[in-house]
Amino acid sequence: MVHLSPMFDWLAHQAQVSPRKLALVFGKQQWTFAELDDGAAQMCAQLTAAGVTTGQHVALLLPNGPEFVLAIHTLARLGAVAVPLNLRLTPAELRWQVTHADCAALLHVDDTAPAAADLAVRQINLQALPPSPEAGQWRRRPLNLDTVQGIIFTSGTSGQPKGALLTFANHFYSATASAFRLGVLPGDRWLACMPLYHVGGQAIVLRSCLYGTAMVLHPRFEAAAVAESLRAAAVTLISVVPTMLHRLLEHHLDSLRAPHLRCILVGGAALSPQLARTCIELGLPLAATYGLTEAASQVATAAPDEAQRKPGSVGRPLLFAAVRVVDAVGNPLPAGEIGEITVSGPTVMAGYYRQPEATAQTLRHGELFTGDLGYLDADGDLWVVQRRSDLIVSGGENVYPAEVEAVLREHPAVADAAVVGLPDAEWGQRVVAAVVPAAGVQLSPPELIDFCRARLAGYKIPREVRWVEALPQTASGKIKRDEVKQLFVV
Amino acid sequence: MVHLSPMFDWLAHQAQVSPRKLALVFGKQQWTFAELDDGAAQMCAQLTAAGVTTGQHVALLLPNGPEFVLAIHTLARLGAVAVPLNLRLTPAELRWQVTHADCAALLHVDDTAPAAADLAVRQINLQALPPSPEAGQWRRRPLNLDTVQGIIFTSGTSGQPKGALLTFANHFYSATASAFRLGVLPGDRWLACMPLYHVGGQAIVLRSCLYGTAMVLHPRFEAAAVAESLRAAAVTLISVVPTMLHRLLEHHLDSLRAPHLRCILVGGAALSPQLARTCIELGLPLAATYGLTEAASQVATAAPDEAQRKPGSVGRPLLFAAVRVVDAVGNPLPAGEIGEITVSGPTVMAGYYRQPEATAQTLRHGELFTGDLGYLDADGDLWVVQRRSDLIVSGGENVYPAEVEAVLREHPAVADAAVVGLPDAEWGQRVVAAVVPAAGVQLSPPELIDFCRARLAGYKIPREVRWVEALPQTASGKIKRDEVKQLFVV
Repeated sequence: MVHLSPMFDWLAHQAQVSPRKLALVFGKQQWTFAELDDGAAQMCAQLTAAGVTTGQHVALLLPNGPEFVLAIHTLARLGAVAVPLNLRLTPAELRWQVTHADCAALLHVDDTAPAAADLAVRQINLQALPPSPEAGQWRRRPLNLDTVQGIIFTSGTSGQPKGALLTFANHFYSATASAFRLGVLPGDRWLACMPLYHVGGQAIVLRSCLYGTAMVLHPRFEAAAVAESLRAAAVTLISVVPTMLHRLLEHHLDSLRAPHLRCILVGGAALSPQLARTCIELGLPLAATYGLTEAASQVATAAPDEAQRKPGSVGRPLLFAAVRVVDAVGNPLPAGEIGEITVSGPTVMAGYYRQPEATAQTLRHGELFTGDLGYLDADGDLWVVQRRSDLIVSGGENVYPAEVEAVLREHPAVADAAVVGLPDAEWGQRVVAAVVPAAGVQLSPPELIDFCRARLAGYKIPREVRWVEALPQTASGKIKRDEVKQLFVV
Repeated sequence: MVHLSPMFDWLAHQAQVSPRKLALVFGKQQWTFAELDDGAAQMCAQLTAAGVTTGQHVALLLPNGPEFVLAIHTLARLGAVAVPLNLRLTPAELRWQVTHADCAALLHVDDTAPAAADLAVRQINLQALPPSPEAGQWRRRPLNLDTVQGIIFTSGTSGQPKGALLTFANHFYSATASAFRLGVLPGDRWLACMPLYHVGGQAIVLRSCLYGTAMVLHPRFEAAAVAESLRAAAVTLISVVPTMLHRLLEHHLDSLRAPHLRCILVGGAALSPQLARTCIELGLPLAATYGLTEAASQVATAAPDEAQRKPGSVGRPLLFAAVRVVDAVGNPLPAGEIGEITVSGPTVMAGYYRQPEATAQTLRHGELFTGDLGYLDADGDLWVVQRRSDLIVSGGENVYPAEVEAVLREHPAVADAAVVGLPDAEWGQRVVAAVVPAAGVQLSPPELIDFCRARLAGYKIPREVRWVEALPQTASGKIKRDEVKQLFVV
């Protein structure tokens, strides 16, 4: 849109309008917007000196910390595309993503240097860059909303990760709609304890900057530290996955009752009506959300007032998200009937990077077919019945059975395998596998689990393996996952 | 933007996501978003039956009330352009605007029927329309942000009113930036007591709907009623001009201290540092803003925290408003130096309707030259020194001297005239005129004022007239307005 031309990168804007306002808290360290802006200008000069240029794809192998936040803003100012990598992936998984995303460089810190060393891409250690005298040239840059901000990998039923292309427009409309649903106040402080390489974490970085509000960043979710921070840092909003909420409820209920806390946003996995009811009975300001990487995070959110009315629902679609529930051929279903959830609007990704087939399958005439099952009730509230048919969500991380099954089948002792998620009070779901042995080969479950460990991120590894004679299948050969689950109930 | 296509009109969205939420309070009457939506659907059907079609310009001769609010939403849904008229204009002034804006119809109510009857345009009395059975067909319509929402007349130094074309995008970016500066909470209630035919009033209608929050509408500013409402309706934000603030401070200080009130937004005219300091000393949540019709209201706003730091400043530009202060040839001036304020960004109007010359003079490469004088200080805070050189702002209404002078000169007893604004504790400024008599004609000041009354809205009529032998002029014949003011000081 031509009339958006004078917009500058969001950090530069805040450095101009709210230079002294608190932007970031990380442990005992604090940054104002002016300080963060100085850091981004410096990093722009440093990365330019290191050969990073506009339009390049740059992988981030970074733990939660100020370097990650600065890298996001720096790449935006440079016009380079951020490709955050999941730190829990194996070297083989990381290698595939860096190659597939055509990354020209990889940013890391001392802690992630060993993992980075395995990857065949130019390495840039953010903690070892010499100061640059050119920072002054990087005070701000015009921002085109239609530019790609980043590529975030998500897996799929195919078992192959796909890189969702998210534009600044996607993030802008997502942040704006979130503000209109949950509210925003100049004094807000949003606590982020989920990985910034996930869309939900990164959205907090971009959103807080756009709003001119502060982010309270944690290196990871550690219940005691988060609880302490809720009070000490006067946090007003926090994003958590159900597992985190569960732990906070168990041991740190008091901290969730901190007077400033006006919103506990729970997403990333299904929130059980039971957990929702517990929170509501305790008077906690619970907000339940349904979102996905391909729609730049939140799609539907029940604000605290609404969540109270209907525990278990994720509320109405956000301002810019048009949601439909459709049958197998794409026709809308009446209220109450379960079908596939679709999303359209300006928060929907531009597509998957270099995967035209997957893009065409997922994006049809601009409408995102999520693969998730749910229904809209008579009020228009969304209920998510099941994430992408076979998707397992364990502690907020997505596990795609196809990917784990493919690894299991690589082992000579395995003829076939079916991976499912079982309900788990702490993790939401835990990964288990039913395996058909290859004729003449014997293997103990621990041996098979060890085999996986070398090839899969820890959260994807089956917690339990059962040998079966055959997998329950439909006539057409599709695995009956519900029956697989039954095998583990006994 | 193609990815915005699935956006629906904002009222339809709120009726879908917040049907039971309070949308409008007017006296003892209340409307939820669902009720307002029903009203708009009904009015869509009624206006269609009355011949209104997409793309038409439709004048509104309406007092503040539910009909005005419904008309704004209805015309948006119909894809017709709203042309709100200032109720204080004379029949001749109204006639000119209705003709100039090519209005195909005019909406009025019983109270404004007599004024409407004077205008040669199809009349539609909103209180006399038969119910339509076709409302069901008007539940919602796609909204293209780049469509013109309305034309709001503003005058100029030429003395000829000009119709600023405002798009939905203008309003959307304005509302979003306002939310990020002042905050928005799901329970917000914004009190509107200024006329809805002004951009500042209409912006509250559109903004509240976009946010899904409530508007508490008053028929006019009546201090006691507003004060009562601040408490009784649990108002959280209120928009006022300095004159209104002055009156509330004088007689209803308690109401300004109502516990829910988190923002008193003062705009429309310069807020004296004195009045600002009084509010701050009283601990009131004052926010000072500078805005104009051509930029869809707010351009810069000092939120309560910031207003406290610098009484008299209007703070930093909003997110989407790039502000420059330039010299006579358009070059930017250093901090602290006074020059013309310019604005660029997506809130800037598309142009003046059918006035290519005025548009070219005001909009240069998309940058709006406001004619207002001010400076940016070293922190980037904006200070407005003087509205559009000769503009007089009296009780929140803009008075353009050229327009009043043209009327005075029509009288045979007047050879020449200069109109200026004098400081006024209650009204901000009051209109006065220095008049050079025509040879051989004698007239008393009251007679000349009566002459104006038939031709000018009440607030434009000089409160005082002085006969002078000659007007103080520059060598090039330009009136020295500062010296004219001196004539009245004695």
